[in-house]
Amino acid sequence: MSLYKIRQTNPLVHCITNSVVTNFTANGLYAIGASPVMSDEPKDVSDMVAISNALLLNIGTLNKNSVEAMFIAGKKANELKIPVVLDPVGVGATSYRKEVTRELLESIKFDVIRCNPGELATIAGVQWQAKGVDSGEGEMDLPTTAKKVAKQFDTIVIVTGESDFITDGEAEFWTSGGCEFMTQVTGTGCLLSAICAATLSVEGNRIVNLLDVLNDYKKVAEYASKERLIGSFQVEVLNGLHKISRGDEE
Amino acid sequence: MSLYKIRQTNPLVHCITNSVVTNFTANGLYAIGASPVMSDEPKDVSDMVAISNALLLNIGTLNKNSVEAMFIAGKKANELKIPVVLDPVGVGATSYRKEVTRELLESIKFDVIRCNPGELATIAGVQWQAKGVDSGEGEMDLPTTAKKVAKQFDTIVIVTGESDFITDGEAEFWTSGGCEFMTQVTGTGCLLSAICAATLSVEGNRIVNLLDVLNDYKKVAEYASKERLIGSFQVEVLNGLHKISRGDEE
Amino acid sequence: MSLYKIRQTNPLVHCITNSVVTNFTANGLYAIGASPVMSDEPKDVSDMVAISNALLLNIGTLNKNSVEAMFIAGKKANELKIPVVLDPVGVGATSYRKEVTRELLESIKFDVIRCNPGELATIAGVQWQAKGVDSGEGEMDLPTTAKKVAKQFDTIVIVTGESDFITDGEAEFWTSGGCEFMTQVTGTGCLLSAICAATLSVEGNRIVNLLDVLNDYKKVAEYASKERLIGSFQVEVLNGLHKISRGDEE
Repeated sequence: MSLYKIRQTNPLVHCITNSVVTNFTANGLYAIGASPVMSDEPKDVSDMVAISNALLLNIGTLNKNSVEAMFIAGKKANELKIPVVLDPVGVGATSYRKEVTRELLESIKFDVIRCNPGELATIAGVQWQAKGVDSGEGEMDLPTTAKKVAKQFDTIVIVTGESDFITDGEAEFWTSGGCEFMTQVTGTGCLLSAICAATLSVEGNRIVNLLDVLNDYKKVAEYASKERLIGSFQVEVLNGLHKISRGDEE
Repeated sequence: MSLYKIRQTNPLVHCITNSVVTNFTANGLYAIGASPVMSDEPKDVSDMVAISNALLLNIGTLNKNSVEAMFIAGKKANELKIPVVLDPVGVGATSYRKEVTRELLESIKFDVIRCNPGELATIAGVQWQAKGVDSGEGEMDLPTTAKKVAKQFDTIVIVTGESDFITDGEAEFWTSGGCEFMTQVTGTGCLLSAICAATLSVEGNRIVNLLDVLNDYKKVAEYASKERLIGSFQVEVLNGLHKISRGDEE
Repeated sequence: MSLYKIRQTNPLVHCITNSVVTNFTANGLYAIGASPVMSDEPKDVSDMVAISNALLLNIGTLNKNSVEAMFIAGKKANELKIPVVLDPVGVGATSYRKEVTRELLESIKFDVIRCNPGELATIAGVQWQAKGVDSGEGEMDLPTTAKKVAKQFDTIVIVTGESDFITDGEAEFWTSGGCEFMTQVTGTGCLLSAICAATLSVEGNRIVNLLDVLNDYKKVAEYASKERLIGSFQVEVLNGLHKISRGDEE
């Protein structure tokens, strides 16, 4: 019922995210009763994050201007104790993404890192073959690696895929279910990161709340996949978020 | 029937708008038989606005480059007597937005300002608590404030919400109806501003045409809300614009 | 069956495209089993194109930063023999677009140029009245002009409209069908260009493969137009791509 709790909290989530998913992310946050605000101009973000309940940094289409904004917003959020989520999209694909992600992790305290296995591998320095912004292929002990990264950066790590893994370095949980369509529509991972940011404004144990949200998101995927066609799926993800966050019965 | 008139006029609307709503705005303009063109590069906008029938400036995700483009395009539009609409998205949220909006209002003659109550309050200097790009909360005499702003900047002011208000500083009208979903899907206000820009290219009394469009947009909201789910709502807004602008019976 | 072949090849397509269509393009590529990656930062694109199977350059909302990225990515792609597609959106509308397109054509070897008749006319130096990013009006012998441009730049030229024309300067084919809705929804041409890029990674004769894809895209339009409403049409284009690329019967 954590999506339902977000609806009752109505947090404002400041998203510095990629240009592919801005609309879907904004509508996804509205669908669960949160409020999105997008701003990625260095001159604009300091004031914006100050009135927000959570901050999301997503490097999917990073550029020099938005990267500058990420550092300003992230540091301001830390100063004001506003929770920050990192989505290191495609970090393994280019050296610029690696460099920016490394510097973000050094300069900003993140409350959550939400990533796929390939992105986790890159952050942990494990050998991996990224495929653009998709996860790619390689071998690692996912729980051990995720726990190591969580400890190193004093953060919660969420690795999503067919099953999702969450850890704060000590506690660890798996959750499964959902639908493979989630990886065939753009922005579903990015939206989940935004929803995780929204979740951090809900009272109670963070790991428990986040795990609830991961489970709800699996249900949303199942709800949305009934038509078995990708165009409808994107629409139905928003419908599912709306429905499940209202506490409607299926 | 003003949406229908827009379809028969087929205006080209140059939009310098935010990155969240570009796709929805373009499709919304196509849905009513107008043509969108998006361009926000200073080197590109002068030629682009010169072949357009109306210009929209929307500060939702402003950056230094797009702000420079707004001034160039706005001044060129004034010079060529092409109508200009301002959508001061989230102007109350940051000092950068306030500063840019003030300078835009000083340098460019706007034909219409389309905003929500919180944005109106900020422009008028009334105390208000913005919530990111949502309206937020405060107290003011909306008609008096809107008329004052309309007179000060010699423009038409449209303030939308549960009921919409339109004034040129003298004449004033309210219209009501619609559906609260309009505030729960991103870009519906931004799209309305783009449609107002398109409306300015239609012959006849501007206030009357704009009021007709506001009424049509309420009907679109009612049409679109039948499924009661937010994902479908965005799709159905486009369907409704298409249907109602064709003059189809319900 | 070329959409089906793309699904089996699963190419990674690096798109430097306009801000209006990023989401629709990404979902369209996913819908046919290709993988999109969007990156338009000069510091990021060299590594990104190096792991991609094809590159798309689309100037729809070009800015100084993305133009710089286009030159870097295009030259790198040429060096690595990765195929490159140009979509010269609205090239006739502004002198900046004309200048950038001329320089791109001088510096980069394109495997395909995908455009509308107005854009072709501008590239060929034929008199034409562009309407923003829509095709506009004028007179030319389309096949002769397209073949001349194909020879001049040693490329395949695809000109789409009510009927589509494809030529490599020698061979030439027309294909017809589809639905006029394709011009009333934003991004359908841009997505087709991205799909052409994906097609170049499929084995076999390029002209034949591309012609197959043009025919499939006409079928997608017919599939998607059943509801006769524009909002649904965008969703149904994605559904149609998904269905037809899976080899499903109608």
